[in-house]
Amino acid sequence: MSGKVYLIGAGPGAPDLITVRGAEILRRADIVFHDALVHLDTLTLAGNAEKIAVGKRCGKRSTAQRFINKRLIDAAHRHAVVVRLKGGDPMLFGRAQEEIVALQAAGIDYEVVPGVTAALAASAELGVSLTQRGVSRSVAFVTPRVGEHERESEWIRSVLAADSAVLYMAAGQAAQIAAALQVAGMPADTPAAVVENASLPEARRLHTSLAGLADAAQWQISGPAVIMLGEVFRQAGAVSEEAVADSMARRVNSRR
Amino acid sequence: MSGKVYLIGAGPGAPDLITVRGAEILRRADIVFHDALVHLDTLTLAGNAEKIAVGKRCGKRSTAQRFINKRLIDAAHRHAVVVRLKGGDPMLFGRAQEEIVALQAAGIDYEVVPGVTAALAASAELGVSLTQRGVSRSVAFVTPRVGEHERESEWIRSVLAADSAVLYMAAGQAAQIAAALQVAGMPADTPAAVVENASLPEARRLHTSLAGLADAAQWQISGPAVIMLGEVFRQAGAVSEEAVADSMARRVNSRR
Repeated sequence: MSGKVYLIGAGPGAPDLITVRGAEILRRADIVFHDALVHLDTLTLAGNAEKIAVGKRCGKRSTAQRFINKRLIDAAHRHAVVVRLKGGDPMLFGRAQEEIVALQAAGIDYEVVPGVTAALAASAELGVSLTQRGVSRSVAFVTPRVGEHERESEWIRSVLAADSAVLYMAAGQAAQIAAALQVAGMPADTPAAVVENASLPEARRLHTSLAGLADAAQWQISGPAVIMLGEVFRQAGAVSEEAVADSMARRVNSRR
Repeated sequence: MSGKVYLIGAGPGAPDLITVRGAEILRRADIVFHDALVHLDTLTLAGNAEKIAVGKRCGKRSTAQRFINKRLIDAAHRHAVVVRLKGGDPMLFGRAQEEIVALQAAGIDYEVVPGVTAALAASAELGVSLTQRGVSRSVAFVTPRVGEHERESEWIRSVLAADSAVLYMAAGQAAQIAAALQVAGMPADTPAAVVENASLPEARRLHTSLAGLADAAQWQISGPAVIMLGEVFRQAGAVSEEAVADSMARRVNSRR
């Protein structure tokens, strides 16, 4: 006899953007394996559970996937309610498949509880819909990889073909990504936005253009961030250009 | 003085897949303008609110967008908490932009509360992640339009360029969409899945191929459904081919 493993999306950051179902399962969880980026108040929901940080944070070493899989299976042999809590949604850039395959192979019951993905929280933060009548009928969610030639053209093609694009785990390489997209033919003046810490009080919104992403290093982005590209962001950019310049100046000054 | 308008994503169907924030705002709502597809138990959360159905349901006439905008503004002049409740997420195929622009023009305060979009609930339902290491680094969410030549190639290009694709509001034209994609060069044996009523007890999962979508009319899809395409669906399809044949046979028999 073994317990059940719930792969739950914690949502984009704010603790109250988890689903009602996700929050209820956390409340009765015996043990929670969570990504490093999950909000402390979300973990607090799991009042009775042992909490174990297993995963990933930009630039830091994370627990090996195979070891996480093993711990989930072991926990299901000891507990009724095992939670694997992931930032955003489990099925989008969450490496859920490796865990699902391992659980299936071990004969462990599992359930995926979807979550709000970062792109949608960023879109809400900007007040700009990713699809718009007459402007955008398609959106691509992509993790770019630069400096590795193998398969590089695939993510680029996908960004170029969609009306709107949201790049995950990309802010650290924004300048290289923007250069690669321009070489591939994307216009330098394509409207771009960067949203850092979407849905959190410390959220930051930056409006620029594809070419303007070359300056991303100056923005000192340290929290989770998405890069957004497409015509839908043009008007919002024009409106807030001044506000953004202010916000960047403040940030730079505050470091001095 | 006027109230605030909340554009809230109700999630993919199941009432407990709304966010905690969305549920809390509904509880203190004075008036709720909701899409026709929102679950009755979700509306019940808004115990003190007047509820008005304004939106859209496949094949039925919906309230004109301009009239919805006007009603939201009028309501904000009379009430403190006005909710516009949309299926899925407001910023993805939800026509939120037209409402946001109208609210901004009228000087009404607004907030977007993101939700779980149908693609992610369908992915959870299938137990198949939309991105997978070594298989899929990009996903496109698209509303196809067939039979209108203008801009038709744009959504097709976006589907072809992404590793995985999820087609919204497409099940009713599945055969034509599949034909158009094959003409554009997508292999006939591309794995495909159709998920109807994702996250609800009556959910149905159908595994097929791009060519197999030609038979979609036989499946009698009547609820909200997404079409999913890509290599990530191949293995799940192989596993459940027999189960699907069974499910289709049952459905056909039950109509006799």
